[in-house]
Amino acid sequence: MAYPGDPGAFAEEAADKLFPNARLVHLPTFADVFRQVEAGRFELGVVPLENSQAGSVLETFDLLAGSRAAIVGEVVVRVDHALLALPGTRLEDVRVVSSHPQAIAQSQSFLESLDVDIVAVYGTSRAARRIAEEHREGEAAVASERAAAAYGLEVLARAIQTEPDNRTRFAAISADPEPLAPPDKTSILFGTRNEPGALHRCITPFADRGLNLSKIESRPLGAAPWQYRFFLDVDAGLPDPAMAAAGHPTDLETSTRA
Amino acid sequence: MAYPGDPGAFAEEAADKLFPNARLVHLPTFADVFRQVEAGRFELGVVPLENSQAGSVLETFDLLAGSRAAIVGEVVVRVDHALLALPGTRLEDVRVVSSHPQAIAQSQSFLESLDVDIVAVYGTSRAARRIAEEHREGEAAVASERAAAAYGLEVLARAIQTEPDNRTRFAAISADPEPLAPPDKTSILFGTRNEPGALHRCITPFADRGLNLSKIESRPLGAAPWQYRFFLDVDAGLPDPAMAAAGHPTDLETSTRA
Repeated sequence: MAYPGDPGAFAEEAADKLFPNARLVHLPTFADVFRQVEAGRFELGVVPLENSQAGSVLETFDLLAGSRAAIVGEVVVRVDHALLALPGTRLEDVRVVSSHPQAIAQSQSFLESLDVDIVAVYGTSRAARRIAEEHREGEAAVASERAAAAYGLEVLARAIQTEPDNRTRFAAISADPEPLAPPDKTSILFGTRNEPGALHRCITPFADRGLNLSKIESRPLGAAPWQYRFFLDVDAGLPDPAMAAAGHPTDLETSTRA
Repeated sequence: MAYPGDPGAFAEEAADKLFPNARLVHLPTFADVFRQVEAGRFELGVVPLENSQAGSVLETFDLLAGSRAAIVGEVVVRVDHALLALPGTRLEDVRVVSSHPQAIAQSQSFLESLDVDIVAVYGTSRAARRIAEEHREGEAAVASERAAAAYGLEVLARAIQTEPDNRTRFAAISADPEPLAPPDKTSILFGTRNEPGALHRCITPFADRGLNLSKIESRPLGAAPWQYRFFLDVDAGLPDPAMAAAGHPTDLETSTRA
């Protein structure tokens, strides 16, 4: 199973919770996890979908849109951010704080109280590892206490996230679309024409059958300004008879009109 | 009129397009613009809503949700990012690139081709100004060519954004909800119960009256994990008879049931 980041990453904890016995391999980026899973070099990958405070991990949604990999499971991980630095560092010595932009967003109130430069590093555990390996004095990372243990760093402050109850939802992805367990949720990606009622027509079949939409996310299509694709989470598995009646999810508009 | 960032910011250009004759004052953050406009110290503020490539500016949506200021107008600005550095710098001398996280996201393909550290600074023009004022050698900023002119920096590369046709939509906000011009668009913020059909019931009145939804965005409520608020853009002004028939926008669910 592949996860993005370095040992000590929250994604490692998610992978560990999903598959306590799997061999876990870390890859540099979210895109690497998608590519290697699609290529069949890993049976499974784990990527963050959404944080309870900062919202959707937009990069993952954009990668899902361009990928043949399917979501086959999910797991929620509690995210307590700590501020880590070289042993002996005091909070007032810190001039630079580095971390993943999502972790920075989740700890914004705390970070604004410090007079520091903020550096974006693509991984909480990578930020911690850099400080340890390059002996970066005066720099602190926003990362897990698990990362502090992994790299021999000191915890200067704990639970620095703005919302105490901070959680991240991770998806297991696979080239084989077979769910890991009997599914109770379906994630659907679709586009609509930019015309009155288009989105409404797409979600009517679910409402008509009492299916709850637990999440809707829109993302720009890219090349065409102000055109969107939509991601829906429905609280029912594909084999659910109400889901079957709501129509084949890749052909929503057609099934709605039928 | 207040705008976030420094002279040379894209928000300055937006303010300039909206009000060629207004006195423009720059404030450090988006939150400062909201606070000062609410307090009546500025008649108008300008804040970015959405970029055609990177998507919604989530910080603005979260600030709108907590603000009494209303959107009273909008303007679209073409966003060409350039890479700026101290005069005499060559591209291969650059070790650090600093900019606003949105500008970094929009230029990701180009930046990945360089072997540099990425530093988040809360303003494209601020990143440029820092380099000029602090004489930061080996650092380049992703910012407008307007910022190069403002701070005497050299343009190392131009139009480095991934999508050539890159635009940002800015909102004019005011404590007085009176629109700047006869409105052809309405932005609505609402919450729903997390139950089957809730979102569907909220958008049905618009679909029934042939009103186009040009945008939907969901954002976490914050303290309660996996609960959302929604932002809708409807392609019709509030005085439009179809909008009036769709019900008072602050009381959507009630009007739908009536």
